[in-house]
Amino acid sequence: PDKIKEKKPKLGVVTGLAWTSVGGTTLEVQSVSMKGKGKILLTGKLGDVMKESAHVAYSYVRSVAGDLEIDEKFNETTDVHLHFPEGAVPKDGPSAGVTITTALISVLTKRKIRQDIAMTGEITITGEVLAVGGIKEKVIGAHRIGIHEVILPLDNESDVDELPKEVKKDMTIHFAKTYEDVKKIAFEK
Amino acid sequence: PDKIKEKKPKLGVVTGLAWTSVGGTTLEVQSVSMKGKGKILLTGKLGDVMKESAHVAYSYVRSVAGDLEIDEKFNETTDVHLHFPEGAVPKDGPSAGVTITTALISVLTKRKIRQDIAMTGEITITGEVLAVGGIKEKVIGAHRIGIHEVILPLDNESDVDELPKEVKKDMTIHFAKTYEDVKKIAFEK
Amino acid sequence: PDKIKEKKPKLGVVTGLAWTSVGGTTLEVQSVSMKGKGKILLTGKLGDVMKESAHVAYSYVRSVAGDLEIDEKFNETTDVHLHFPEGAVPKDGPSAGVTITTALISVLTKRKIRQDIAMTGEITITGEVLAVGGIKEKVIGAHRIGIHEVILPLDNESDVDELPKEVKKDMTIHFAKTYEDVKKIAFEK
Amino acid sequence: PDKIKEKKPKLGVVTGLAWTSVGGTTLEVQSVSMKGKGKILLTGKLGDVMKESAHVAYSYVRSVAGDLEIDEKFNETTDVHLHFPEGAVPKDGPSAGVTITTALISVLTKRKIRQDIAMTGEITITGEVLAVGGIKEKVIGAHRIGIHEVILPLDNESDVDELPKEVKKDMTIHFAKTYEDVKKIAFEK
Amino acid sequence: PDKIKEKKPKLGVVTGLAWTSVGGTTLEVQSVSMKGKGKILLTGKLGDVMKESAHVAYSYVRSVAGDLEIDEKFNETTDVHLHFPEGAVPKDGPSAGVTITTALISVLTKRKIRQDIAMTGEITITGEVLAVGGIKEKVIGAHRIGIHEVILPLDNESDVDELPKEVKKDMTIHFAKTYEDVKKIAFEK
Amino acid sequence: PDKIKEKKPKLGVVTGLAWTSVGGTTLEVQSVSMKGKGKILLTGKLGDVMKESAHVAYSYVRSVAGDLEIDEKFNETTDVHLHFPEGAVPKDGPSAGVTITTALISVLTKRKIRQDIAMTGEITITGEVLAVGGIKEKVIGAHRIGIHEVILPLDNESDVDELPKEVKKDMTIHFAKTYEDVKKIAFEK
Ligand SMILES: [Ca+2]
Ligand SMILES: [Ca+2]
Ligand SMILES: [Ca+2]
Ligand SMILES: [Ca+2]
Ligand SMILES: [Ca+2]
Ligand SMILES: [Ca+2]
Ligand SMILES: [Ca+2]
Ligand SMILES: [Ca+2]
Ligand SMILES: [Ca+2]
Ligand SMILES: [Ca+2]
Ligand SMILES: [Ca+2]
Ligand SMILES: [Ca+2]
Repeated sequence: PDKIKEKKPKLGVVTGLAWTSVGGTTLEVQSVSMKGKGKILLTGKLGDVMKESAHVAYSYVRSVAGDLEIDEKFNETTDVHLHFPEGAVPKDGPSAGVTITTALISVLTKRKIRQDIAMTGEITITGEVLAVGGIKEKVIGAHRIGIHEVILPLDNESDVDELPKEVKKDMTIHFAKTYEDVKKIAFEK
Repeated sequence: PDKIKEKKPKLGVVTGLAWTSVGGTTLEVQSVSMKGKGKILLTGKLGDVMKESAHVAYSYVRSVAGDLEIDEKFNETTDVHLHFPEGAVPKDGPSAGVTITTALISVLTKRKIRQDIAMTGEITITGEVLAVGGIKEKVIGAHRIGIHEVILPLDNESDVDELPKEVKKDMTIHFAKTYEDVKKIAFEK
Repeated sequence: PDKIKEKKPKLGVVTGLAWTSVGGTTLEVQSVSMKGKGKILLTGKLGDVMKESAHVAYSYVRSVAGDLEIDEKFNETTDVHLHFPEGAVPKDGPSAGVTITTALISVLTKRKIRQDIAMTGEITITGEVLAVGGIKEKVIGAHRIGIHEVILPLDNESDVDELPKEVKKDMTIHFAKTYEDVKKIAFEK
Repeated sequence: PDKIKEKKPKLGVVTGLAWTSVGGTTLEVQSVSMKGKGKILLTGKLGDVMKESAHVAYSYVRSVAGDLEIDEKFNETTDVHLHFPEGAVPKDGPSAGVTITTALISVLTKRKIRQDIAMTGEITITGEVLAVGGIKEKVIGAHRIGIHEVILPLDNESDVDELPKEVKKDMTIHFAKTYEDVKKIAFEK
Repeated sequence: PDKIKEKKPKLGVVTGLAWTSVGGTTLEVQSVSMKGKGKILLTGKLGDVMKESAHVAYSYVRSVAGDLEIDEKFNETTDVHLHFPEGAVPKDGPSAGVTITTALISVLTKRKIRQDIAMTGEITITGEVLAVGGIKEKVIGAHRIGIHEVILPLDNESDVDELPKEVKKDMTIHFAKTYEDVKKIAFEK
Repeated sequence: PDKIKEKKPKLGVVTGLAWTSVGGTTLEVQSVSMKGKGKILLTGKLGDVMKESAHVAYSYVRSVAGDLEIDEKFNETTDVHLHFPEGAVPKDGPSAGVTITTALISVLTKRKIRQDIAMTGEITITGEVLAVGGIKEKVIGAHRIGIHEVILPLDNESDVDELPKEVKKDMTIHFAKTYEDVKKIAFEK
């Protein structure tokens, strides 16, 4: 996370927002799908909550596979590997839920994801987007490295008041109540 | 758990009652069923007792599948995922037993669950509803966030005396001896 | 365990005797059998010794399946779930061996178990009934909640001398050397 | 272990010798074989060394199955359960190796084992019998409960000098260098 | 790691760079592929991060198998064993990512790897090469044992300024932004 | 390890050299192969490094199975059990690598191993023999119990200088750079 993101849309690569003791930063997820038997591989020193969060995202995607025009048997025919570089840094928490959901949908539908946008939010299996912590720090962190557009949970709307003016005026902020709201913004048109 | 529940019945979403060190609150379970091989996925940072409680509910539902007009092979053809948002909050105990049972029956029978009602109670594999702790705090917590109807174990009937008058007069309380008593009330007519 | 047992025989439900720091009590096991692949599911916060004890009971039942007119392939075609309410209370020890054996035979043969009788005793894979601890406390506890007939290991015969007279005169006590002795008494005629 | 052993030969039941902090005693293994898929089930609160010891005995029996006229596919068609009562007493160490080997051969060949004899000794996968500890205490313990014939490892021959004269004159002691030596003595003629 | 590397290219053997408390050294990975079912075996006392790093390399190779003319079913038909001698020395971290990737490609394509070159760098599933720590110590260590050509992450370019002049003038240094850059250099022409 | 080894070659039995706090000794591995599904069973209270070392030996043998005229499908049709008596003594480290390799090749090729020779050395999956610790103590220990021929890693050649003259003149020492060097010496001609 130390340079401005290239702008070209990519398959399976999503910029999340993370919150560490020294401030906000971005947290990339990379994903690939491969012919397989339905395995989900999760790497990058993830804690249990973050792993569960990936399974929640996976079940949400399974439950809406028909609407997304994903082969409904993907969970028997396709393996998915989600990796969070850097591999030695421990990562945990549910706030990468929408990021992971976006990565999964990208590799399963072959739709590219915008690389000039970052996102954060817990996902539920019914597709709700729940509030997460550290919104102020995350958005400041994203701004510092050149991100000018973010997707946040609607339930975090009030946290935006706490942003410094110079960040706020420079940043397009979208609020998502459900994953449907994220999907409209995150993918290449 | 910070706003009044929408009233429209939903598939697989049940409002349970929980009891934390700072008082009673609601604890939602969300569930989806998908074509699969009979796997049960449980997420939301659940402790061992709560996971066992889900397996007890599952066996109860299996044992009455015929009466419920559920395909008796569902445990070989259907995967079920039960998720308890918020994913970072640890949850444990047997008191979500009736809540989980209701969620399972909903996704397996495609019957919607009332969203204006909350419930608590341990379930056994024969369908008995057993007493649980924290009834007073749970009902006060439910009332605070706008719930006016609850299902409690019959064995907790005496705990209701301890409720403040203003809560009691505002609340329809049902008592359940077996899950049959819950089923009559929880689902959309 | 806080009311007198209903007297009507039931399938898969057995009253065991337990011994806690605050005295003897009853410990119910509930069991259901379902079409399956031979899995044994054990819930109710059981310790390792108690789980092993269930596997010992299961192997004993397998080894005498022919005599009991149980389909000898039940361990490939039937799943059994044994649950010990209350799910949050830890339970351990080998003394539920005869109780579990009785539950297994009930669900596999569809013979109902008397609900006016309680039992305790370790089981071995050859069907021996071994002595267990806390006999005095267990029988007093059973008596307190209205049980008037118990099955104890023959090796515990001498412990009965320690019972208060008023309990002893009120209680029919059977002694079992092997499971055959239990089987003659526990099931509905 | 508190009464003199019945003398009639039995299938799958072997009396081993054990050594505890309060002296020597006997340690029974009970085994049953059942139609299955080759599983080995070990119960009785066994430590890792004792479990490995059972696997060593099992591989030894597999490697000599032809000589013993055991169906060489037994490890695919037969399940074996070895149980060590009393289930709550922890047991460990390699010294039940010959005892377990004897139990396995009994249930797989349907040959009965003498119940008036006790044995101790580590087994290797090539059938060697290795020295074990506590010989003096074990033999005294066996004598105390009425056993008058024991099988010991040849490597422990010198330990027999330490036995009290009154035990020694009352006891037939066999020494085994390999399992072949045990087999000649342990089974019913 | 105590003698100058033989110069002849080898199959499946790659020299990595490691960084210990007593300075930089080389860390060899050896790999073999065998007919199998797609298993990956990792030995050499590897920590969790290093094991995950091998899975990341494996998924990267799977995702570019077509371009590399590797049978795309190798993950079902081929077992791969990656071993890091010396087996008693604990190893961890993500910095062997490019080394492992090179070993995998070698055994799957049967292309030999240059033995006069060493490398370090974290790999991601999309094939990016990320910066790692200890560059100065690693290159000095490689130089000490006769290595004169190394591949480093482009993101570590600035760390090269810190190398002693006598090491720098003796060393050909390649920088890699993606694994494509490594592949051009590491294999026998 | 307390008597001079019988001299007759044996199948699957190899004498290794071990090094404990009280000096060098021998460490036997016994192995048997049986019709099966390719399982490797390791017993004798082995630590993780020693278990990995057995897997390294196994992969080396798989990768050279053709040259050894071993059926290349042995890893699907044959089970191998490697046992290290005495079962209660913990054992660890990579130095039994060549010993295990020799045992595996013996049971898979049915070639007998010389029992008048002992060996030590770490093995890698490409068949290299790496240096190990305690050479002086190990050779003195072997000498004490009547072994007059040993195989050591070539990388340990210098350690032989430290041997007492009376041991050295009594001992034939072979040095191995690769497993090929061991194979020429260890098997019955
Ligand atoms: Ca970084
Ligand atoms: Ca706020
Ligand atoms: Ca909420
Ligand atoms: Ca919250
Ligand atoms: Ca009360
Ligand atoms: Ca209670
Ligand atoms: Ca007594
Ligand atoms: Ca006893
Ligand atoms: Ca070294
Ligand atoms: Ca630098
Ligand atoms: Ca010894
Ligand atoms: Ca030296």
